[in-house]
Amino acid sequence: MTKISQIGGEQALIKRIQKAIKTSKDEVILGIGDDAAIIKPPKNKNKNIAITTDMLVENNHFSLSTHTAEQIGKKSAVANISDMAAIAATPKHMLISLAIPKDTTVEFIDRLYKGITKETGKHNINIIGGDITGSPSGALTINIVILGETSKEIRRSGAKPGDCLMVTGDLGKSAAGLHTLQHNPKTSKKTAEILKKAHLEPSHRLKESQTLKKLNCITSMNDISDGLATETKEICEASKVGAIIYKQKIPTTHATDELLKAIKKDTKETALYGGEDFELLFTAKKQDTKKIIDTLKKHTGTTATIIGKITKEKQIYLIDKTKKTRLKKTGYDHFKENPFDYKK
Amino acid sequence: MTKISQIGGEQALIKRIQKAIKTSKDEVILGIGDDAAIIKPPKNKNKNIAITTDMLVENNHFSLSTHTAEQIGKKSAVANISDMAAIAATPKHMLISLAIPKDTTVEFIDRLYKGITKETGKHNINIIGGDITGSPSGALTINIVILGETSKEIRRSGAKPGDCLMVTGDLGKSAAGLHTLQHNPKTSKKTAEILKKAHLEPSHRLKESQTLKKLNCITSMNDISDGLATETKEICEASKVGAIIYKQKIPTTHATDELLKAIKKDTKETALYGGEDFELLFTAKKQDTKKIIDTLKKHTGTTATIIGKITKEKQIYLIDKTKKTRLKKTGYDHFKENPFDYKK
Repeated sequence: MTKISQIGGEQALIKRIQKAIKTSKDEVILGIGDDAAIIKPPKNKNKNIAITTDMLVENNHFSLSTHTAEQIGKKSAVANISDMAAIAATPKHMLISLAIPKDTTVEFIDRLYKGITKETGKHNINIIGGDITGSPSGALTINIVILGETSKEIRRSGAKPGDCLMVTGDLGKSAAGLHTLQHNPKTSKKTAEILKKAHLEPSHRLKESQTLKKLNCITSMNDISDGLATETKEICEASKVGAIIYKQKIPTTHATDELLKAIKKDTKETALYGGEDFELLFTAKKQDTKKIIDTLKKHTGTTATIIGKITKEKQIYLIDKTKKTRLKKTGYDHFKENPFDYKK
Repeated sequence: MTKISQIGGEQALIKRIQKAIKTSKDEVILGIGDDAAIIKPPKNKNKNIAITTDMLVENNHFSLSTHTAEQIGKKSAVANISDMAAIAATPKHMLISLAIPKDTTVEFIDRLYKGITKETGKHNINIIGGDITGSPSGALTINIVILGETSKEIRRSGAKPGDCLMVTGDLGKSAAGLHTLQHNPKTSKKTAEILKKAHLEPSHRLKESQTLKKLNCITSMNDISDGLATETKEICEASKVGAIIYKQKIPTTHATDELLKAIKKDTKETALYGGEDFELLFTAKKQDTKKIIDTLKKHTGTTATIIGKITKEKQIYLIDKTKKTRLKKTGYDHFKENPFDYKK
């Protein structure tokens, strides 16, 4: 194991990263190694630039006691690509800033980058720059920026009363995985594996987003990073509407159900308030939902489920069988007590 | 004083920030509040996109015991604008990511943003997005991204043997200011004020960069964030050349000289290895230097000084009166022992 100071410090580390990275000469005029990166504007004149940034902090978004360096890298990339998926943009370029604790090894950084580049490689995303600094507090911090292109972004603000509220895949798996990692509850080995993997190596829904965009009928969209409740609230606030969520319709998978039953908790609650599933939450007119469900299944293999509807009344209600309650709680908030958290 | 959880957490804080910020509708299609920001590509077809990012970490780039919230905000903005100046690009849009310790007050964040927006306001930079998260380690971390435009960036890699090595302003003031803040040495009150201000409220050289760019004769450029020695090394490595620095020609100001004399240290060494002066280091042919010095003085009031020359031999030498030595040390490195550091 090699300390960063042993290879010559910050500049040597940047050169090591630079060497391991290839970028498209067609798009990147100047990549890693100068004061700024220079890229060409979108070739297609009708396209605009999309940009998003996400900061991942140790013991908040990941823990060194549960995640490998490669998993931390992958998650950092996925969280950001998921934001591009959420707005229906195509990711093109990435910048990575790291605050690194003093005793971090070069090999750890190599594996962290491997986790990132495995994801960027799949989608031809160029790594064009970033920053490397020390972290006196000892907390590893990763900030990723993605630049993308889009001609017709899908915003949070387009939901209309009467629209169906839909979601890709299933929810609650990441929160169930975190519980499994922390408490090792009694479930089948297979269930534990599925849940842990969902938490440690989440996937984004970029391909699904691109398929949905082509259908040209999605009225609003968001990715589920802070839980279904919070993301629904965000769509409703941006669109100046309300929603009804049918609790029993929220899709959860067998593994999540098995765990939550074992620990005597409500699967659907976990799906509502657990974060980081990175599924897409979106709205569309009722007449378009069949086409959406069929096309998504055909082109990506991913299911889409109608879980509720958009209302004119600016409240979010949860219907549990016949019981209608106002949804007051929301999901993950970094400044509140959270149901799912790393132990600090 | 109000805690972030008291106003409703993360989402409420984002809304508060969003309200306080105005962006140009002509350039920004979608600002703060969705999964990504959407901006228009440069209007001028010959312009490319420049992007830079800098991460500032508590007790590394600033300290809560020496800096006010507003000063931290200003410094974060200046460090990033300085990178745009270094490559001769015009900053246009900014994204701000914050990892905030749990007990941080809303008022602190307001003042931090005030420090940032005072700088962005001066240069019509739109704040278009970012991320807000908690910091379990208790360290405040700020990552800023700036998107800009440039038609002919000035890179680090264009220095040619025979070129003069030049610098704007004077060096070592920020390091001298940090020493003053930490050790309260015996100097005149005025000197202490000047030095402390240089450290706590540094300035960038954006206007100077734009003036230099118009002259169309700068062969390479860098901003001095990690000390003259490091930045000279970066230009030399990128340009595949060497340099001679005349130690006595390195510009230092009276206040820096006074302090360094009082503590019996070498002013020019401080100028070589102390970071964060944010002056511009650049190269140009000898015949262009008079025009550069005169134009810069006339249009910006800033002095430019010839401090050395570029050589074919890929070494950096320091000439101290008649003594010629190889410059082995470099300046600030986050993974090495540093001459100028916050006490941890």
